[in-house]
Amino acid sequence: MPKIVDHGARREELAAAVWRLASREGLDALTIRAVAAEAGWSTGALAHYFADKEELLLFAFETVADRVGRRIVRAAEHRRDPLDLLRTQLIEGLPIDAERRAEVRVWFAFLGLAETRPRLAKAGRDAYRQWRDRVAKTLSAAQRQGLVDDSLDAQSEGAALIALVDGLAIQATFDQRALGRERQVRLVDDRLARLAVASAS
Amino acid sequence: MPKIVDHGARREELAAAVWRLASREGLDALTIRAVAAEAGWSTGALAHYFADKEELLLFAFETVADRVGRRIVRAAEHRRDPLDLLRTQLIEGLPIDAERRAEVRVWFAFLGLAETRPRLAKAGRDAYRQWRDRVAKTLSAAQRQGLVDDSLDAQSEGAALIALVDGLAIQATFDQRALGRERQVRLVDDRLARLAVASAS
Repeated sequence: MPKIVDHGARREELAAAVWRLASREGLDALTIRAVAAEAGWSTGALAHYFADKEELLLFAFETVADRVGRRIVRAAEHRRDPLDLLRTQLIEGLPIDAERRAEVRVWFAFLGLAETRPRLAKAGRDAYRQWRDRVAKTLSAAQRQGLVDDSLDAQSEGAALIALVDGLAIQATFDQRALGRERQVRLVDDRLARLAVASAS
Repeated sequence: MPKIVDHGARREELAAAVWRLASREGLDALTIRAVAAEAGWSTGALAHYFADKEELLLFAFETVADRVGRRIVRAAEHRRDPLDLLRTQLIEGLPIDAERRAEVRVWFAFLGLAETRPRLAKAGRDAYRQWRDRVAKTLSAAQRQGLVDDSLDAQSEGAALIALVDGLAIQATFDQRALGRERQVRLVDDRLARLAVASAS
């Protein structure tokens, strides 16, 4: 039964409902029924968008990736200096406020579930490849401008930089007192400063 | 109804069964019924050890922490050089072989579930505090021996080092090809070399 609806707008509406539910109650709470209630839709209407729970989880994960990605793109518009852009590409992944803490919680809950589910695992792999590639590309740009040691392998350094961010995000998620906003940011800045220092040696 | 049994031996037996099941099929598969079948016990006998699913998950997480902790202690017996010990305290957390890959999978699956469950979250927080403290203690010993720059804050550096290991572990879990054994170890060694280099400057 074809319907005349604005699918783009409806997806946005759905994404907002899924995000509210997932950030408020965690991925455990993400069921077709609960999302329908949150969005004010019928479960039948939701079935046009999600065949099963895995598709719902994927959608939640992509919503988080989109949110972070959009902030980075927006920030990049004002940043010409590659080291400045690099910093944004890293800091935006840290749980330094309530909104980002919710994103990080959904992110890691998804990854925990994804390990044993091939379709979700692929989404995780793709997300990390994209993040690593973006960071590596910015690092290469910084190398071309002589801001970072030319001999460093951008892909490996990219992996290490996002690893630092991810690992800090996990520790901060479980121990906000030990890894507050300031300490998280300082540890990433220290790391970036040493990259720049290495270029001067 | 009191029983005359060797509780230590029975716990070891249980830990082995829980570990086999969790590493083979993931935390989703961890139910009282499945663990009983794996151990060859009745579900009633298992009820003496686990009141609910959360206790089972906690036990699986502690089993992983124990496995890693024991390897580090064993390795430490042969290592007098603090930088060498530090390297072991980090490398042992990387998914560099099948056994360690299974440990890392159970670890992150647990953390994903723990975010919304206070009792499990506390276990996650405690595990990271312990790891961070051990690494910081070894770093301090290296500083006292003049091997690492005295001005570095051992707690912060410890947080950054285990963050790197954790983040590499996540990327490697989803993308073994991009983050193979050799690359993981090299990235940690690079980081340790720079710590030592910093002390020479």
